[in-house]
Amino acid sequence: MSDIAAVLERADKNLPESLERLFALVRVKSISTDPAYAAECRRAAEWLVKELEVIGFTASVRDTPGHPMVVAHHQGASADAPHVLFYGHYDVQPVDPLNLWETDPFEPQILKENGRDVITGRGTSDDKGQLLTFVEACRAYKDVNGSLPVKVTMLFEGEEESGSPSLKPFLEANRDELKADFALVCDTSMWDRDTPAISAGLRGLVGEEVVVKAANRDLHSGYYGGAAANPVHILSRIIAGLHDDTGRVTLDGFYEGVEETPAEIKAMWDKLGTSDEKFLKPIGLSEPSGEKGRSVLELTWARPTAEVNGIEGGYTGEGFKTVIAARASAKVSFRLVGKQDPAKIRAAFRAYVRNRIPSDCSVEFHEHGGSPAIQLPYDSALLNKAKDALSAEWPKPAVVIGMGGSIPIVGDFQKMLGMESLLAGFALADDRIHSPNEKYDLMSYHKGIRSWIRILDRLVQA
Amino acid sequence: MSDIAAVLERADKNLPESLERLFALVRVKSISTDPAYAAECRRAAEWLVKELEVIGFTASVRDTPGHPMVVAHHQGASADAPHVLFYGHYDVQPVDPLNLWETDPFEPQILKENGRDVITGRGTSDDKGQLLTFVEACRAYKDVNGSLPVKVTMLFEGEEESGSPSLKPFLEANRDELKADFALVCDTSMWDRDTPAISAGLRGLVGEEVVVKAANRDLHSGYYGGAAANPVHILSRIIAGLHDDTGRVTLDGFYEGVEETPAEIKAMWDKLGTSDEKFLKPIGLSEPSGEKGRSVLELTWARPTAEVNGIEGGYTGEGFKTVIAARASAKVSFRLVGKQDPAKIRAAFRAYVRNRIPSDCSVEFHEHGGSPAIQLPYDSALLNKAKDALSAEWPKPAVVIGMGGSIPIVGDFQKMLGMESLLAGFALADDRIHSPNEKYDLMSYHKGIRSWIRILDRLVQA
Repeated sequence: MSDIAAVLERADKNLPESLERLFALVRVKSISTDPAYAAECRRAAEWLVKELEVIGFTASVRDTPGHPMVVAHHQGASADAPHVLFYGHYDVQPVDPLNLWETDPFEPQILKENGRDVITGRGTSDDKGQLLTFVEACRAYKDVNGSLPVKVTMLFEGEEESGSPSLKPFLEANRDELKADFALVCDTSMWDRDTPAISAGLRGLVGEEVVVKAANRDLHSGYYGGAAANPVHILSRIIAGLHDDTGRVTLDGFYEGVEETPAEIKAMWDKLGTSDEKFLKPIGLSEPSGEKGRSVLELTWARPTAEVNGIEGGYTGEGFKTVIAARASAKVSFRLVGKQDPAKIRAAFRAYVRNRIPSDCSVEFHEHGGSPAIQLPYDSALLNKAKDALSAEWPKPAVVIGMGGSIPIVGDFQKMLGMESLLAGFALADDRIHSPNEKYDLMSYHKGIRSWIRILDRLVQA
Repeated sequence: MSDIAAVLERADKNLPESLERLFALVRVKSISTDPAYAAECRRAAEWLVKELEVIGFTASVRDTPGHPMVVAHHQGASADAPHVLFYGHYDVQPVDPLNLWETDPFEPQILKENGRDVITGRGTSDDKGQLLTFVEACRAYKDVNGSLPVKVTMLFEGEEESGSPSLKPFLEANRDELKADFALVCDTSMWDRDTPAISAGLRGLVGEEVVVKAANRDLHSGYYGGAAANPVHILSRIIAGLHDDTGRVTLDGFYEGVEETPAEIKAMWDKLGTSDEKFLKPIGLSEPSGEKGRSVLELTWARPTAEVNGIEGGYTGEGFKTVIAARASAKVSFRLVGKQDPAKIRAAFRAYVRNRIPSDCSVEFHEHGGSPAIQLPYDSALLNKAKDALSAEWPKPAVVIGMGGSIPIVGDFQKMLGMESLLAGFALADDRIHSPNEKYDLMSYHKGIRSWIRILDRLVQA
């Protein structure tokens, strides 16, 4: 226990130099979407390799068809220590419109904002600052102990902001090298300034496009109206029937594999202070629209949905055209939780739709991806150790939350490397990531480093 | 009765010269949509004035902001004779693609087609041939009797193929001059080669655009899905609820003013040989989709409808985007029959929609026109006299039919001049109007002239 106090103290002492290193990395203009910055992306990768080598990692720049990866390894203090894979990305979003920036996006500064010290610049929060919290945690460990408590592999990509085209092939090709006991993903936010958060659940997704076809051409609604099938009506009935009056999805077997969230987790969420009103007011709404009797957090974090993302049919231009369309189409997605099976959901949807197509009409389906939900069990040791560690560092205890959307890397780790991920990060909702005047709170950086020290330490405790 | 035999005989004798006159009019390239042919449009109007003056009409070319109108008047044989307004148009559709024409579109010929004599050329059927049937009927009358049995006003426009922009202002400005007891509109078709048809009913139309608004911006369906209202779902439920399981429209009071079609009329329609299958097969369908237990002819001619003509919401491009749209919209039209009131239907629709909008969402409506149905009563003397006259001329008795769509001029005559219209014409379904190789059967022209002679004669009988 004295060990960790010394490591934390060392991190505090290192902070000024840690900041210099963050500044140096932020100065590298590693915008991945713009080919003009390809050399800068490589320079960021090389910078990381050099810094990791200084700490004692075996590190290398690894070429891909796009921007390179950085892979680095370090042994743990003992042979049976757990092996963690830390993931981050060194590329950043473009900075346009430049005239909206109050400081140079690539010349970081520490400024006061609402009484807080913030580090300005593109990538300070997303993701250079976040990934360095982990690197600097490792450095403090090495400075004090000469070793790391766990075996660490780091994987930094340079294409996260441009769709990660090289990531899957790279995981596939380097499966053995990258496979660890679990992954640490540091691309998420605090619940609020005082409350760290771990995302234990990520909803899965099934995407379907459905095209209903009726007549063999668009028809004049005067001549045919009343006698000819209207595919917009058919599609509307299909969509209207997807939910019952209580907001539940009506597909056969849709709720197979959906488990109720434990009462203590729901109680934790209820205490977060996110009322339906608080959640919906910023988007101009006030009534939760989904399953009745559940809070907005439960609805968006822990319940499955059926949602139409787009619909189109007939004449949609200016004015009016009395046409009965030959076809109408909708893009429909299902958010999945628990153990819902994407293939079964897709099959149930298609059967549901086919049952509602008149015999003289037809339907086509186009698949748009499918991935199951990710759920770190609420009683998992990894989750609870990280929770303890974070609770020790921050003013308020860590909360275990869900995420309504998906983070592809987490699914890839699960699917391709059979590895669970722990999602924790120190960004704040007001960091303006992807926008002008991105910043990272000095506190996020400093206590983020300390948080990883505590987590690494806690991982090797019983 | 000897009168009419002589007039019919005269029409037969006149036929060769009548054809020369039709040829002369077809040779005028009066394409109204192309400004290059403006002088030709005027030349067609002037040609008509000259020909009508030859028959004894007081005729004039009347300027409008677009192509000119032709107005001509002739007294009836007696002061108390009815006054009829005959409407037609001298402009024609463009002729592209010219290479698909087998003859010169503006050099008419009489050719054999499937054993029938047909007059080739643009406008032979639509509407130069049709309008001349009436002019030539008047000529034969004048040739024999030196008078016309009824007072006749003719109105020929030159913008029918380009949306009739000058027509309403012209009717408005010349109301007193154009108002007659009723109108004769010769822009329709025979039921088949042997069976003349009178259109007694034209459905009305109410057009509405409805925009459902939910959140104040497009939302990420991962973050908000399950909690935020989806306007596509709301709109789909609205559309799905517009019809009940029997295909009836559910709006309050929707069927007020809708009368059942008399049994003898329905029996007449049933005998026309238009089975559901025959009607729907060419468009690739087989099941009538509207109110159950009614034939396709009844559904499209004599029953009101609610039809979505277009729908749009969310992401509709290539691929997939997991968005919850801020808004979704639909264009909805109602076809009206009988005495349904467009304003009441619109109000009932809006009330129905408003009742289905969640309290934190909103709806906007945009009006797109409204006109009541036109219905010549099945027992009207005008209708039955015309029916008798046509039945005397053609191999099979005339049938009284409906039209699913609207003909704006008929509504305008009703609304602006308080005048009913009798719709009868001699075109055939295979006349290829608006297409290359337009033709008009020689029989249509010849017996069309004879038909108008019989109708004019019958109008002044008891």
